[in-house]
Amino acid sequence: MSEFHMTECIRKTKEQMPLTPDEIAALVRGVTDGTVPDYQTAAWLMAVCFNGLTDAETAQLTMSMRDSGQVMHWDMLSGPVADKHSTGGVGDKTTLILAPIAAACGIYMPKMSGRGLGHTGGTIDKLESIPGLTTALAPDEFLALVKRTGCAVAMQTGNLAPADKKLYALRDVTETVNSIPLICASIMSKKLATGADHILLDVKVGSGAFMKNDTDAAELARLMREAAKADGRQCTAILTDMDRPLGRCIGNALEVREAIGVLRGDTDNALGQLCITLAAEILRMSGKGDAETCRHMAEQAVSSGAALQRFAQMIEGQHGDPRVTEDLSLLPQSGCSRVLRAEADGYISAMNSEEIGRAGVLLGAGRMTKNDTIDPGAGIVLCAERGDAVRAGDALLTMYADREQQLDEAEQKLRNAVVISEEKPAPQPLIHHVFSDMTE
Amino acid sequence: MSEFHMTECIRKTKEQMPLTPDEIAALVRGVTDGTVPDYQTAAWLMAVCFNGLTDAETAQLTMSMRDSGQVMHWDMLSGPVADKHSTGGVGDKTTLILAPIAAACGIYMPKMSGRGLGHTGGTIDKLESIPGLTTALAPDEFLALVKRTGCAVAMQTGNLAPADKKLYALRDVTETVNSIPLICASIMSKKLATGADHILLDVKVGSGAFMKNDTDAAELARLMREAAKADGRQCTAILTDMDRPLGRCIGNALEVREAIGVLRGDTDNALGQLCITLAAEILRMSGKGDAETCRHMAEQAVSSGAALQRFAQMIEGQHGDPRVTEDLSLLPQSGCSRVLRAEADGYISAMNSEEIGRAGVLLGAGRMTKNDTIDPGAGIVLCAERGDAVRAGDALLTMYADREQQLDEAEQKLRNAVVISEEKPAPQPLIHHVFSDMTE
Repeated sequence: MSEFHMTECIRKTKEQMPLTPDEIAALVRGVTDGTVPDYQTAAWLMAVCFNGLTDAETAQLTMSMRDSGQVMHWDMLSGPVADKHSTGGVGDKTTLILAPIAAACGIYMPKMSGRGLGHTGGTIDKLESIPGLTTALAPDEFLALVKRTGCAVAMQTGNLAPADKKLYALRDVTETVNSIPLICASIMSKKLATGADHILLDVKVGSGAFMKNDTDAAELARLMREAAKADGRQCTAILTDMDRPLGRCIGNALEVREAIGVLRGDTDNALGQLCITLAAEILRMSGKGDAETCRHMAEQAVSSGAALQRFAQMIEGQHGDPRVTEDLSLLPQSGCSRVLRAEADGYISAMNSEEIGRAGVLLGAGRMTKNDTIDPGAGIVLCAERGDAVRAGDALLTMYADREQQLDEAEQKLRNAVVISEEKPAPQPLIHHVFSDMTE
Repeated sequence: MSEFHMTECIRKTKEQMPLTPDEIAALVRGVTDGTVPDYQTAAWLMAVCFNGLTDAETAQLTMSMRDSGQVMHWDMLSGPVADKHSTGGVGDKTTLILAPIAAACGIYMPKMSGRGLGHTGGTIDKLESIPGLTTALAPDEFLALVKRTGCAVAMQTGNLAPADKKLYALRDVTETVNSIPLICASIMSKKLATGADHILLDVKVGSGAFMKNDTDAAELARLMREAAKADGRQCTAILTDMDRPLGRCIGNALEVREAIGVLRGDTDNALGQLCITLAAEILRMSGKGDAETCRHMAEQAVSSGAALQRFAQMIEGQHGDPRVTEDLSLLPQSGCSRVLRAEADGYISAMNSEEIGRAGVLLGAGRMTKNDTIDPGAGIVLCAERGDAVRAGDALLTMYADREQQLDEAEQKLRNAVVISEEKPAPQPLIHHVFSDMTE
């Protein structure tokens, strides 16, 4: 192999000439071991923001980042191994529902997750609102739990795709986050390192998501599926709506409460139906039958109580109190609350999820910087959804926080986030598009 | 002033939103004092390469970089103070001719110069080929010499525009050199810090220059004049041809020899005519009369021997041997030489100045990295110019170097650089365009 020059890589990307696989591998090695200085990496990242990367470069970047650390294997599990990733939304508690359903149907879901940042939440924070529960599991303990119950959720360690950790930290402070090839490589390097054969991607699209429109979301979905395919994995990407929050609860313990509700059988709503659809797609990818059969299996796992039981087992295995699945009052709830009421008659025409997410942060449910602490019992419960008719004085939502002042701060944001109009808005489907081997 | 966020500056430039003067000033302060990390500066520089800057941003960047260090004043000089800058070429010894002519006509030219790098030469290296001469002058000594003789050339110190030094070092390793607004700010911050009222810019255009075409060169000229105007200076920019070397000598002592030849009265050639034109424009800007009067004054300064005398005084003031102006054999000349001859009859249709410059480096006349040493007596003397008719066997040029091996290395490069064709090439003017207060 010829000598590696980072300046040559920067120049090529700047002039829209593709990098060779060797160059990309060397670049990622240099970023990981620190031999490529941050200022050169930053210049290259900015050039990528302007000129993009080819599909082949994106796939190679993803692989090289995957190989920068530990790559997990699940040969010791005697059944299909699946994973699911959401690009980050407001009120997105699907993992808490999906993993137990899939596990109850014979799929292994060993999940690595992260904490929330900014206006979007994180699965780790949600789970840790359950009294006693930990996500810092030793590898042995994690594996034993997955073998026993089919699912477990652990905090992602620094060993998975460390190149992504370095690149993301740099992108975060150089305004180079919003590049679709870089987002693809960041997400997929970790997903591929996690080792699942079947990967379900939930690509959020709308005001509250990184992808603001269907075109960008579809491009990200396409690139991520190409990278998965290049690594021999099966991958479905589903574009789901994030112009509104997902479900009715935003905030950690509140979302666990809502997830338990669905697992108890409350599936006749947008969140419940989405979870059944996502679970069915995981089952289908894993060879459990055709789409209709898999949907029926997923519904059965809920109605039989098998999925809820798996969730209780997982909580117990992670040292949490499994009785929360029976007694929701065991979950924390913040001491102060306030109801926000409609100021006029009309229809709810918009529920700006980004603003609602930011209001959640003000209430204590999220963090703006990595070192902020969160209040597990804080958040928002929506009493109505987009499209619902309301009368002046009707409750729109309830806020929960530790202090009255937080309620004051969040109230104005929420007032702006919920728009009431005279006209009933056109319905907006929750699922915008499905990209799978069935739709190719 | 509101708090400064470098990420905000990067984002704005990336999204083509202009930065405020305060933001640019804070950015330059942060780069200079090191509080803005290099990786953020690198990302911003790359965004500038893609999106450019507005004229107002470029002027502000120039001013802020000027103010990052010492700003010189010449109030103690009782006459017009002028400066000249060349964007860098091959065989460009105009400063050595121009400064004594202007000085002989009553203009002060206190010049700060740099060393050569890559295929282009530097005035400091050329002057230092004169036995004994130093360009490391103490401020007092420099000022006294300028007062006495009207001109002096000192090595540029780190105190002038230190922000440029930092930014240039970063641009050099992040492939962000070739941005016209950044080139403008780099050149003009130093020129404005040097304090002259009348500034003549020689913008080289062609294969051997940074600006490869007239469009880019004209844009650079326009931006540099705008920055000068914003600072209340008078500025003329002349676009001159660098598809061929300037004059017939390339290499440090060889160029001093050619400059002395012009000052001795050998002005009936491209180099001589250009120097008269440039000198006349400096005189005109400084209020010495109309264009015709000034041209006559410049010619007189040469024909009377006054300019040569000033050059000798300047050399003596800088501790060099002034007898070189009378006896060229006192200048160093490398021991090995070889004549390159035409292999066919025809016309010289191209003399690629970049290749000739690179051949000069191979011969020892230039340096590829800052730490290389140079051979003051090495270089190339052209025996013919573009457009001349030659016959097979005619001498095209003579190479000078310390070792035969260097001649071997340079020969092939020079063979490729000089193209002989059957057709006589169309003549190409040396001066492409003049941008001055007369042409506006």
